[in-house]
Amino acid sequence: MRDLARRRLPKMIFDFIDGGAETEATVRANRAALDRLALRPKVLVDVADRDLTTSVCGLPLSMPLILGPTGLARLAHPDGELAIGRAAQSQHIPFVLSTGSSFSIEDVAAATGDDRQLWFQLYLLKDRKLNENLLERAKKGAYEAVVVTVDVPVVAARERDLRNGMTVPPHIGPRNALDAARRIRWTAGFLRSGRKLSMGNLIEALGPEAKNVKTAAQWFHDLTTPKFDWSELQWVRSVWDGPLMVKGILRPDDARRAVDSGADAIVVSNHGGRQLDFAPPTIDVLPGVVDAVGSSVDVLMDGGIRRGSDIVKAVALGAKACLMGRPYLYGLGAGGQAGVESVITMLRSELSRCLALLGCSAARDLSRDFVQLDGIPAPANRARVT
Amino acid sequence: MRDLARRRLPKMIFDFIDGGAETEATVRANRAALDRLALRPKVLVDVADRDLTTSVCGLPLSMPLILGPTGLARLAHPDGELAIGRAAQSQHIPFVLSTGSSFSIEDVAAATGDDRQLWFQLYLLKDRKLNENLLERAKKGAYEAVVVTVDVPVVAARERDLRNGMTVPPHIGPRNALDAARRIRWTAGFLRSGRKLSMGNLIEALGPEAKNVKTAAQWFHDLTTPKFDWSELQWVRSVWDGPLMVKGILRPDDARRAVDSGADAIVVSNHGGRQLDFAPPTIDVLPGVVDAVGSSVDVLMDGGIRRGSDIVKAVALGAKACLMGRPYLYGLGAGGQAGVESVITMLRSELSRCLALLGCSAARDLSRDFVQLDGIPAPANRARVT
Amino acid sequence: MRDLARRRLPKMIFDFIDGGAETEATVRANRAALDRLALRPKVLVDVADRDLTTSVCGLPLSMPLILGPTGLARLAHPDGELAIGRAAQSQHIPFVLSTGSSFSIEDVAAATGDDRQLWFQLYLLKDRKLNENLLERAKKGAYEAVVVTVDVPVVAARERDLRNGMTVPPHIGPRNALDAARRIRWTAGFLRSGRKLSMGNLIEALGPEAKNVKTAAQWFHDLTTPKFDWSELQWVRSVWDGPLMVKGILRPDDARRAVDSGADAIVVSNHGGRQLDFAPPTIDVLPGVVDAVGSSVDVLMDGGIRRGSDIVKAVALGAKACLMGRPYLYGLGAGGQAGVESVITMLRSELSRCLALLGCSAARDLSRDFVQLDGIPAPANRARVT
Amino acid sequence: MRDLARRRLPKMIFDFIDGGAETEATVRANRAALDRLALRPKVLVDVADRDLTTSVCGLPLSMPLILGPTGLARLAHPDGELAIGRAAQSQHIPFVLSTGSSFSIEDVAAATGDDRQLWFQLYLLKDRKLNENLLERAKKGAYEAVVVTVDVPVVAARERDLRNGMTVPPHIGPRNALDAARRIRWTAGFLRSGRKLSMGNLIEALGPEAKNVKTAAQWFHDLTTPKFDWSELQWVRSVWDGPLMVKGILRPDDARRAVDSGADAIVVSNHGGRQLDFAPPTIDVLPGVVDAVGSSVDVLMDGGIRRGSDIVKAVALGAKACLMGRPYLYGLGAGGQAGVESVITMLRSELSRCLALLGCSAARDLSRDFVQLDGIPAPANRARVT
Repeated sequence: MRDLARRRLPKMIFDFIDGGAETEATVRANRAALDRLALRPKVLVDVADRDLTTSVCGLPLSMPLILGPTGLARLAHPDGELAIGRAAQSQHIPFVLSTGSSFSIEDVAAATGDDRQLWFQLYLLKDRKLNENLLERAKKGAYEAVVVTVDVPVVAARERDLRNGMTVPPHIGPRNALDAARRIRWTAGFLRSGRKLSMGNLIEALGPEAKNVKTAAQWFHDLTTPKFDWSELQWVRSVWDGPLMVKGILRPDDARRAVDSGADAIVVSNHGGRQLDFAPPTIDVLPGVVDAVGSSVDVLMDGGIRRGSDIVKAVALGAKACLMGRPYLYGLGAGGQAGVESVITMLRSELSRCLALLGCSAARDLSRDFVQLDGIPAPANRARVT
Repeated sequence: MRDLARRRLPKMIFDFIDGGAETEATVRANRAALDRLALRPKVLVDVADRDLTTSVCGLPLSMPLILGPTGLARLAHPDGELAIGRAAQSQHIPFVLSTGSSFSIEDVAAATGDDRQLWFQLYLLKDRKLNENLLERAKKGAYEAVVVTVDVPVVAARERDLRNGMTVPPHIGPRNALDAARRIRWTAGFLRSGRKLSMGNLIEALGPEAKNVKTAAQWFHDLTTPKFDWSELQWVRSVWDGPLMVKGILRPDDARRAVDSGADAIVVSNHGGRQLDFAPPTIDVLPGVVDAVGSSVDVLMDGGIRRGSDIVKAVALGAKACLMGRPYLYGLGAGGQAGVESVITMLRSELSRCLALLGCSAARDLSRDFVQLDGIPAPANRARVT
Repeated sequence: MRDLARRRLPKMIFDFIDGGAETEATVRANRAALDRLALRPKVLVDVADRDLTTSVCGLPLSMPLILGPTGLARLAHPDGELAIGRAAQSQHIPFVLSTGSSFSIEDVAAATGDDRQLWFQLYLLKDRKLNENLLERAKKGAYEAVVVTVDVPVVAARERDLRNGMTVPPHIGPRNALDAARRIRWTAGFLRSGRKLSMGNLIEALGPEAKNVKTAAQWFHDLTTPKFDWSELQWVRSVWDGPLMVKGILRPDDARRAVDSGADAIVVSNHGGRQLDFAPPTIDVLPGVVDAVGSSVDVLMDGGIRRGSDIVKAVALGAKACLMGRPYLYGLGAGGQAGVESVITMLRSELSRCLALLGCSAARDLSRDFVQLDGIPAPANRARVT
Repeated sequence: MRDLARRRLPKMIFDFIDGGAETEATVRANRAALDRLALRPKVLVDVADRDLTTSVCGLPLSMPLILGPTGLARLAHPDGELAIGRAAQSQHIPFVLSTGSSFSIEDVAAATGDDRQLWFQLYLLKDRKLNENLLERAKKGAYEAVVVTVDVPVVAARERDLRNGMTVPPHIGPRNALDAARRIRWTAGFLRSGRKLSMGNLIEALGPEAKNVKTAAQWFHDLTTPKFDWSELQWVRSVWDGPLMVKGILRPDDARRAVDSGADAIVVSNHGGRQLDFAPPTIDVLPGVVDAVGSSVDVLMDGGIRRGSDIVKAVALGAKACLMGRPYLYGLGAGGQAGVESVITMLRSELSRCLALLGCSAARDLSRDFVQLDGIPAPANRARVT
C-alpha cells in the first residue's frame, strides 16, 4: 500500500506523510524496536473464535486499533477526513479528527452515520476561546473523547519537506511540475479542490480572521505557544467532561503527572518520529508507563504499527489499543475510502491470524508472557554475497 | 544446491519452498541465531572413528538427521515423495511423510524397501474418522512413528505465494508462462504428471468425496479446524501405540504439557518460519525445552539447518536429532532422488568433519561445553568499501 | 554543508578535513555512539524562553559550542582563520586558534573586534622559548584561554592523505590537475594566495629560521617531541595565568592527573578520530571523566558533533560545552565566513528546538535523566530489499 | 598489499591464501572481534624511545611478531620460503617453516645467514620415523623452536578452493587459462619452476617414496592421522629438547593439558579460520587461556592480525607475540622478499606509532588496562543513503 501511495502521490506529498524529524532516527527506531521482539506461541488452544474487541475508557472497539490524528488529509485525497471517517465507521473503530484537519468537526460528523466513533484531537491553542470553541463543537458533534497532544511545543524540522520545498497548501512550480504531471489523478483532484487552505476546524474557529492565515506553518506559529504547562491540561479537564486522553508521553513520571492532572488515558507516542528526533521507540518505553499508571488508566501506543503482529506486541506489553497514522494515509492516497478500509481489513485479518497462531483466543488476554524481549536476533556476521 | 533449484524451478515453485510467513523475520532469525553460536574445539582427541549414529524414541538413525515432513513434493519433481523416501532409505535416516503428501502412505511404502524408516506426520483433521484412517494406514504401512503437527491452527500468509499467484495445483497462465518455458524440464514433468491435485493420502482417505476438493487451500480449510486442544492429542495417544512425537513446540510449559499428554518426543519447531512470523528462533528456545523435559523424552529440532555444523550446534544444546526441510527439496528440485541423496551426503560429511575438528568422536557425546553462546560477534563498525 | 564542501573543494583537501587515522574506526565510532543514545522528553514544560547560554571557566558562551582548533584553514578558503574568527565573533562563541593556523595570533586578533572570544591552542614545542613566544603573544592579543593539546606525541597515519599524495602546502601536479580544474573557485583562491606555507604563528615565532621549514610535516617533526610528560604541563601552568584547558583526555585517571597539574578544564577528545585509531568514542568516556573531575573543573567534549541533539546529549552527560571541527570547515570551504556562520546558526536553532521538544528551558539544566543509554536500537534483522 | 596480491596472483591462488573453511564465519569473526576492542590511551607519557622488543621462550624478538607457518609458499612466488626467511632475518623476527613448505629445512637454513631465527612447524605424521627425521633435521639446521600444530586432525573444506578447482600443484586448464594469461609474471614463474610438487621437507623425509605422492591433499591423507592424542605430544617432548610450542588451542582446559604435556608455549589459534568453521575468534578466547596458563608459559596468538593496533590489542590482553600468515603471503605474491619486508616494516611502524599514541613506551608494558572490551560500538541504526 505504501508503494502504491508512493506511485500515486507527488514526491513532496508522499514525503510529507512518510518522513520524520531531522535524521529520522526515531522513525527507524520505532520499527527496529518492534522487529526485535519475538512472539511465544502456545499450541493446542481452542482459537476457533477469536475475540478482537476491546475498550478504551469504556468505549467499545471492534479491534485494538484507532485511526490516529494526522491533519490535512486532503493532501492525500480530495475526500480527506470524510473518507477516513467513513472507513473507520464501516470498520467500527474510532477515528481521531485532528485540530489541523482539512474538513471541519461538523463536516466529518455530518458525513458519517450515527454509529461512527469520532474522537477529537486538540492542539492547545494560545487563545483559550479557540480551545473552548473547538471543544464545544466536538461535544455538539458527539465526539466521544478528546485527545490532547502535548509533544508539539514547537514544530520539528522535517528535512524532507525542507528539501522538497513542501508548504501547506502545496505550491506547484517549475521544480515539481513534472512530478505532478505524472501523478495526474492526484493533481486533477488537487486542482479541482481549488488548492484551498482547507483547515476546516480552524477556519470555523477563527471566523473572519481565518483569511489572514495563509499556511499551516503560519497557523501553528500564530496560534500555538510553547508556554503551556500542566495547568493548561487541568483547564481542559475542567471544561471537558468526557474521556480525556493525553498523547505524546514517553516517561513514567510524566504519565503519573498526566493522571494526576485528570487524564483518563495515556497515549505513549513520539509523534511517529516527527517531533523530537532521537526520542526512544514507543514500544520500549511502553512497559514502564504501564507499570506506572496502567492500573488506574488505559494506556495506548502509536509509532511504527504496520502489521497485526505489531498490535499484538503492543497489547501484550500493556497497551489497550494502538493508534496508527501513516498506513491509512498510504491507503487514502492509493484509493480513498476503499484504500483506508483495505488497510484496516488487512490489519484485522493479520491480527486475527496472529492471535490464532499465538494460541490466544482474545486480544484482551494477551500478556507479557507472549513476548520475548530481544527474541529476534540482530543480523549475523555473514559474508555479503558479491 | 539452493541456487541450482532456483535455476531449475519456476519462480513460484521455488518461492513456495523457499519462502516464509509475512515478513519472513523468523526465517532469517533461525539462521542468525545459529550463526552467532561458536563451537569450542578440543584438540588431541582420537577422532579416527567418528560415530554419527543416534536414536530417537529407541529407533536407530545413521546420523542425527531426519527428512522432515514438507507436503506436495511433486511440485518440485515428478517423483516427489517416492524419490525422497528412497533417498532417505539409502542413507539410513527417517523420512517423515506429510499428511499433505503428493503420493500416498501406501505408494511411498511400496516404493521403498524393507529397511526404510518411514514416519508419518499427522495434521489433526476435524473428522476423527479421517485421522483413524490415516493412522491405521500408517500402521499397516509399517510407519515407525507418528509426528503430530500442532502449529497450524490456521495457515499463515506466505506473501511470496500471494504475490506470485501461487496455488496448489499451480496454474500456468500468461503471467508465468515465460518463466515456465525457461524451466523446460520442470514444465515437461509437470505437464506429464497431468497437473493432478496429487494429494495421495487425502484422496485415499476421503474416497469418493475427494473429487470435491480442488486445491490444497481448500482441503486445509475444509478438513481442519482451529478448535483442537490437548485432549485431541490425548485421543491420538489412545489410538496410536507407537512412538508419538509432537512438532511445533516453542515453550517449556507446552513441552511439559505435551509430555503429560503422552508424547514420546518433542520437536522444537517454528515450521521453518512459515507459520507465526516473529516466532523465536528454534535454537534459542531449545535449551529451555531440553531443561524442562529432556530427561524424560527425546527433544528434536528443526529450523535453518543448512550445514553439518548446524546439526552439531543443535545436538550440543540437547537435541537428539534435527529435522530438515527446504535443503532436501532444493536437492529434489535440482536432481530428484540423486539430488536428495547428495544433500544428505554433504551434510553427513560436513557433520563428520565438524566432529573431527571439534575433537568429539561421537555425535552422542556432544554437550553444551562445545558451544559458546554469542561466540561469533556481530559485524563490526567498518567502513563500507565504495 | 558537507556535500557542498565536497563539491567545492579538491578531493585531497576535502579528504584532509574529512578523514581520520588508519581505518577511521574512531571517526565512525564517535557518530555511532552518539546515534545510539535516546533523548527522554518531558512534556508540558514552559519552554517559551530557552536559555542556551553557559560558561566555561567563568567565560560566558552564547551557547555550549566552541569552534575547536583545526589548523591550516587557508586550505579550505583564502580567508582561513580570519573568516572563522569573525564568524565566531558574530555568533558570540569562542574560536580556538591553532598553533598550526595559517594566520597568526596577531592577524586573527586584528581581524576581529573587541568582543571576540579567542582562545589559543598550544602544541607543546620542544623549544620552551617558542612556547613562551606563543603564550606571550596570545596574552598580548587578549586570547582568553589556552588549550594544550596532549594527544599528538606523534602524528597518526591519515591514509586518505597518503593515498591522495596530500602535502602541506598542497602540490598540484598531473595527478590532481583535473580535479583542481573542476574546482575553479578553490584553485583560483589557492593560486592567488601564492601557495604560501601559511603557518602564521610559527613563522612569527621562528623568525628568520622559518624559511627552513617547508612543510607542515616537517615543522611537526622538527619542532615537537614525544618526550613530554606531566611536568611540561606544570610548566605551562607556571607561565600562563589565565584559564588552562587540556585537550585529548580519554581516561578518568588522566583527567585527575591533569587537574592535579593545574588544568582548569578537561577536553575529552580523540582528536576527531585523527590520532589513535580505535580510541573509544568520546561520548562513551565522558561520564566517567565527569564523575572523576566534574565537581572541581569544567569538562568539555568534541568528536562527531553534527547536530543540536548531539550537543544536548553531551551536555546532558556532563559536558559544559562541545568543540566542533569538521562542520565549520565544511562551511568555510562551502562559503567562507558566511558558511561558518550558517553552520553555527543551524546548530543554534537545532539546539533551541531540541531543548523545546525535550521540555528543558535551559541548556544548563540538562542532566543525565534526559538521556537513555542504548535507547536507539541497532538495525533489526530485516530482509534487504533487492 | 592484499589488493596488489589480488591483481598479481591467479584467482585460484589468491583464494587459496585468502579463503577459509566453509562459510568463512571464523575468518570474519577474527576481524570483527578485534575491531570492537577500543584502546584507552594515556597522555603526557615520555614515549620518545619505544621499545618494541620482546621474547618468547627466552628467544629475543625485535617486535612481538612472528611469520607463522603457511606451507607451499612457492604458489605465491618462485622464491617461496627462501624469500620469507630472508625477509624475516632482515627484520630480526622469527619465521616458522611449515612441514608442508615448498623448500626444505636445509634449503631455507642455507639461504639465510647466521643470525636468522628459524622455527620449525611440525604436523604430527603417522610414521614416527618421519617425525624424527624432521625434528633431527630441524635441530641440525639450528631451528630454535618447534611448533606442533594440533588443529588439523582432518583438513577442512575450503569451499573457494573447491569452486576454483584448486589443487596442489595447481593445474592450468581451459577454465583458468585466461586468468593465468592475465597474470603473466606469476605464470611465467610458475612455468619456470617446472610445476614441481615442491614439498621440500617431505620429499627429503620420504626419500625414494616421495615420487608416489602427487598432490598436497594426498600427502596429507597418506601421512597424517586423526588418531593422535596428548601422548603423541609427550613423545615429541621426549625427543625435542628445545622450546616446544603447541599451536591451535582455543580452550583453557586444553591449554593446561598442553602445559602438563610439556609445552613451553601455547599458540591460541583457529588456523586463521581455515579449519573449524565457527571456531571462536582468537582474541576473545585469549584472556581465558592467559588466565589459565599465562603465569607458567608464554601465550601467543594468531588470527586476523592486519595492523599494528591488532598486535597491541593481543599483547595487551596477554599474548607475548602474534603470528601472522596471510599478510606476508600477500606481500610475497605482490613483490617477493621485498614485499614481505615491506609488510613487516609497515606493521613495525604502525606498532611503534600506536604505542606512542597509547602512551606506552614498551610493548612489554602493555596490559589489559589499555583495552576497553566492546569499546567500539556496532553500526548505528542510520538511514542507508540511496
